[in-house]
Amino acid sequence: MPHVVILYTANLEPQTDMGQLCRGLADTMLALHAEDGARVFPQGGTRVYAYPAPHSAVSDGGAAGRAAGGDGDYGFIYINLRMGAGRSPAVHKAAGDALLGCAKAHLAPLFADARKHLGLTVQIDEAPGQVYDAKHSTLHPLFPPR
Amino acid sequence: MPHVVILYTANLEPQTDMGQLCRGLADTMLALHAEDGARVFPQGGTRVYAYPAPHSAVSDGGAAGRAAGGDGDYGFIYINLRMGAGRSPAVHKAAGDALLGCAKAHLAPLFADARKHLGLTVQIDEAPGQVYDAKHSTLHPLFPPR
Amino acid sequence: MPHVVILYTANLEPQTDMGQLCRGLADTMLALHAEDGARVFPQGGTRVYAYPAPHSAVSDGGAAGRAAGGDGDYGFIYINLRMGAGRSPAVHKAAGDALLGCAKAHLAPLFADARKHLGLTVQIDEAPGQVYDAKHSTLHPLFPPR
Repeated sequence: MPHVVILYTANLEPQTDMGQLCRGLADTMLALHAEDGARVFPQGGTRVYAYPAPHSAVSDGGAAGRAAGGDGDYGFIYINLRMGAGRSPAVHKAAGDALLGCAKAHLAPLFADARKHLGLTVQIDEAPGQVYDAKHSTLHPLFPPR
Repeated sequence: MPHVVILYTANLEPQTDMGQLCRGLADTMLALHAEDGARVFPQGGTRVYAYPAPHSAVSDGGAAGRAAGGDGDYGFIYINLRMGAGRSPAVHKAAGDALLGCAKAHLAPLFADARKHLGLTVQIDEAPGQVYDAKHSTLHPLFPPR
Repeated sequence: MPHVVILYTANLEPQTDMGQLCRGLADTMLALHAEDGARVFPQGGTRVYAYPAPHSAVSDGGAAGRAAGGDGDYGFIYINLRMGAGRSPAVHKAAGDALLGCAKAHLAPLFADARKHLGLTVQIDEAPGQVYDAKHSTLHPLFPPR
């Protein structure tokens, strides 16, 4: 059920390995355990999709960045996790903080570059407005409950 | 107003005809009628968009699939329908079941392949958190109410 | 925090400049001020992403359009703004109307073409089901509050 969708400006494509970030975020999700010791996210349903935007516009288009000595080629990465409803606020915070920490670590070289101006946002939604949910899978059975 | 967005792992691109799945899902939506006999989804507003993810990560990355004799190249297809609020639970279930049935039929060869491990999820959201809705169209007038 | 995502049929790619539409929508967002005179959307967090769909299906696939003298190659543009919760209905309406106006003006040549049949929808969601929100940015500090 849980998935992460990453939307980002395509100028970042050559600057960082987004496939590696996907793998890191998936591993982060799979390592999370709730108060009762159970995995927060089922192994067979955890996935991350990342989409560079062929067209985008960010903030003022670069003027303030160039004025501050940057290259004016702003980047933005938006990470959204959709998960089923019913988890505790503590689990939401642990999941969000873990995803944010993973992404910050992966993007650290870009954040440390004084010529780059980059935004990262992480948000979690609990299946908003959901009125139907079904699945069919030959992947889930690989991970039987123990 | 109603639309379907399909997010899927790009490894599925050569394995199945996603354009055909889009068409099948749109036809499925257009064939749905509510309790009062009226179409559930307006003809001029029904559309399906499908996006392969250039980067993705699924579950454990393939280890369990390979251990089970598969190729370890997991696929995942997520189908999300966003529709206006106010329909009955019976209509939600009918719409979801119809979309799931269409996708399962289309993907049957992949689900039947013992070397493939594939997940399919269908979810419907009722215009979550929506605070504004407007349209402008030269398409809707092709389908006047009768 | 606020972002716009544009999903559209790829047949529109050569017909209009989507990068220019992104810039126009971002400028539109940045020009909005609330009742108290403050910007509705923070400069450092405003961004627009546009994604042509590699596969899509719209309405009846073109039959009614061809019968009406069109080319039967329907286009659809969906514009979604996600913004933080808590703004007034007047601000929602002002933001939605401004985005719709910007997109209608940009797409006017296509709407005026009798051979084209095109749908445009604008919707705003207030952070639906959101249970976590965090950011890290070297972009936001370019725009200190005054």
